This record gives sequence, structure tokens and C-alpha cells, in this order.
Amino acid sequence: MRMRKKKWTEPYLQQREDVVVFHPQEYKGKWKELVPCQKLHVEIGSGKGDYWLQMSKLYPQDGWIGVEKCTDVAGIAVKKSENQTTAQMKFIQGGAEDVTEWFAEGEIDVIHLNFSDPWPKKGHAKRRLTHENFLKRYQIVLSDDGEIIMKTDNSGLFEYSLLSFANNGFQLIDVSVDYRREVHDEDVITEYEHNFMAKGQPIYRAIWKKNGGVK
Amino acid sequence: MRMRKKKWTEPYLQQREDVVVFHPQEYKGKWKELVPCQKLHVEIGSGKGDYWLQMSKLYPQDGWIGVEKCTDVAGIAVKKSENQTTAQMKFIQGGAEDVTEWFAEGEIDVIHLNFSDPWPKKGHAKRRLTHENFLKRYQIVLSDDGEIIMKTDNSGLFEYSLLSFANNGFQLIDVSVDYRREVHDEDVITEYEHNFMAKGQPIYRAIWKKNGGVK
Repeated sequence: MRMRKKKWTEPYLQQREDVVVFHPQEYKGKWKELVPCQKLHVEIGSGKGDYWLQMSKLYPQDGWIGVEKCTDVAGIAVKKSENQTTAQMKFIQGGAEDVTEWFAEGEIDVIHLNFSDPWPKKGHAKRRLTHENFLKRYQIVLSDDGEIIMKTDNSGLFEYSLLSFANNGFQLIDVSVDYRREVHDEDVITEYEHNFMAKGQPIYRAIWKKNGGVK
Repeated sequence: MRMRKKKWTEPYLQQREDVVVFHPQEYKGKWKELVPCQKLHVEIGSGKGDYWLQMSKLYPQDGWIGVEKCTDVAGIAVKKSENQTTAQMKFIQGGAEDVTEWFAEGEIDVIHLNFSDPWPKKGHAKRRLTHENFLKRYQIVLSDDGEIIMKTDNSGLFEYSLLSFANNGFQLIDVSVDYRREVHDEDVITEYEHNFMAKGQPIYRAIWKKNGGVK
């Protein structure tokens, strides 16, 4: 997402120590102490934070860590959470390449990837959040029973991801090429997703298990 | 496909010994002698035979075996091929459950599944041509480098098949959730497929390798 540089975001994020974790590497192996929960969810590429915010309300007993690389976008997400955060919610301003710095082996239960940037040019494949370089990192930080849930409107990214996960030892355990064909109360619909649905665009979704586990 | 019983098909098929193979088990291990070719393609569920007929024209150097269980539909397919058959084309009236009776281990190079009956009811899952009972048979008759190519308009069958192949040792090597988004000169478009495209329905397609081979 390209945006005009926002000058307020950097200092604003600094003030929001209730939710922003400034040195996530200090919590490596201790996230479930910081955010007491059975299930630790990490959304990578949280954008403006709607999914992170809404899902943490739907599953208040779980831990919800939002991750967004772009400072200005992270600022918007955190701003949105004002007066709505709970002890179960944390936010990291940073990129997926660092997940193994922040999280210990097997520490995450569910990784969420929502409407990630498709980086459609072949030369930009390495930037896609489902490139094998990232999948290898996810493998490390996911628990044995861990899952990755991906949702996108982008057919090219979805196809690429199905192949990338299949080639990197993940087991496909659920897939939908038109997820909103049925009602899914277990998952929230953000405004961003609504816009695609309003255009009649199918929403693609898949879940992979780390360990080739078959449900 | 449900049709009125056609009385002419049974005796007609008997006359068409130029293309119909009446005792396919007699050619087990010898199909490439009967149909001299480098690559042996078998389409399971050929319906009215358009794909079988058109693909054998597009790849005349390969061998093309059409398979259709329903006698009346097989009759239509074979009738269509009148004055158009070559030595590279054969047709079997029979069902997928018998492929291991007809073909030897590793004898088939490519299995094609086109717009197979989705059998949407859960209780009918065993009839789907991508049910694991069939996939196990395909594993046997496919060559080490063998592939299965599936095309469908049915999202439910496609999703089911992605999971079924993933759970039965096949490796996904190509996938499209909107195959006709681009031009594909390597594949024919039958009238049947055209009808779905005309309705704006996406065509789903995937290719799996038998041996987890990565291209």
C-alpha cells in the first residue's frame, strides 16, 4: 500500500506502549507470558488492522499479534485500536523476514495472511509473503500442530501460494475458491474484504498444517 | 449425465471395432503396441467425446484413449468420431474402477479428467473420479513421470480434489482458479466448456505429478 508519508505516525506509535511492542525480540519464547492465552495468533501484514481488531473481539481468550511493516500503515492500525485494546492484543511494526528473531521455535499456533500484496511481477516473487523464504521461517515459529490461514482476492497470488506451500512441506487441509459462497461465522469480514465481495470478486482461502497432519 | 435410453448405441458400438476396444484387459501392457506413441493419454469420463476428439487432432503423434462408463453417452462420442478416427485413437466403454484391469503399472503418461460429475452430496463422495479409491488406481497405472490434468467448472469438486490429491501422495505442479483468464493454445475448448465460459463461470484446472516431482 503506497501512502503519503505521515509525520504523526512515528511519534504516535511511540506513545502507544499499551499495545505496541518496541523490542519484540525481548519476548522471544515468552509471548504467552506477555499475552496469556492457549492459542497465539499472528497476523503478518495487518494493513490498517481491521482483521486484527475484529478477530481479537471474536476470540477474546486467544492472543492476537498484528504485524505491519509500513510505519504509516501500522500507525493507522494502532490508532484504530484506541480505547479498544485488551491485554490479549499486541502490535509489532516490522517485517515477516524477522519473525524468527521475535518468536521462538513452535511458539505460534496460527499465522494469518490476509489480502497480502500480490507483487504480480515475476521479479518481485521474493517479496510475496508466501515465497519459500518466508515459508521456511513460518515452519520454524509454528507449533507442531500449527496452521497458516490465507485469504486473498488475488487469483495469481492464490495459485502461486498453493504451489509454494505444496513444495515446502506444508499440508493443505482446507481450501475454498469462493469462500463467501457460504456463511462463515468463524471469520470476520473487514471493510476491505467487503469491497471485493461487492464487486462480485471471489474470495480465495486455504489452510495448511505445518506437519502434513491430516484432520 | 442422465439421458433417455438409446436403443441404437449398443449395437452401434459393436460395429465400430475400428475405434472401440471391446476387451481392454487383453491389451494390458501392450497399449503402446496397439497405438504406437511416445505419450499415452487416457481421458476418464469422456462424455460425448469432444475433448478426446479435438485433443487427438491437436496432438496426432500421441495416443488417445477415451473412457466413458455410460453406454449411451459412449455411443454418442464414438458416433461423433465417424470418419475422423486415426490409428492413434481408441475408446473404451467402461468405468474408472477398472483402469488397473486394463492398464499395466506405469503404462499411462497422462490421465485427463474433464468436467467430471461433481456428485455434490457427501454420501456420493465415493463416486467422484478424484476420490481416493480412484486416485490409488491412477497411481498404479501412471508412469513415474506421469501426470493427471483436471479441469472443472465446479468449485466444490475442485476444492475436494485439491485436498484429495494432496492427501494421497500427489504433488501439485500447476493450478489455476481461472484458467481461461489467459489464452492456452495447448488445450482445446469444447462446446461444453464454452457454455460455462459464456456464463462467466471460471474454469478451474490443476496438474499433479505422481511422484512428488517438482518441475
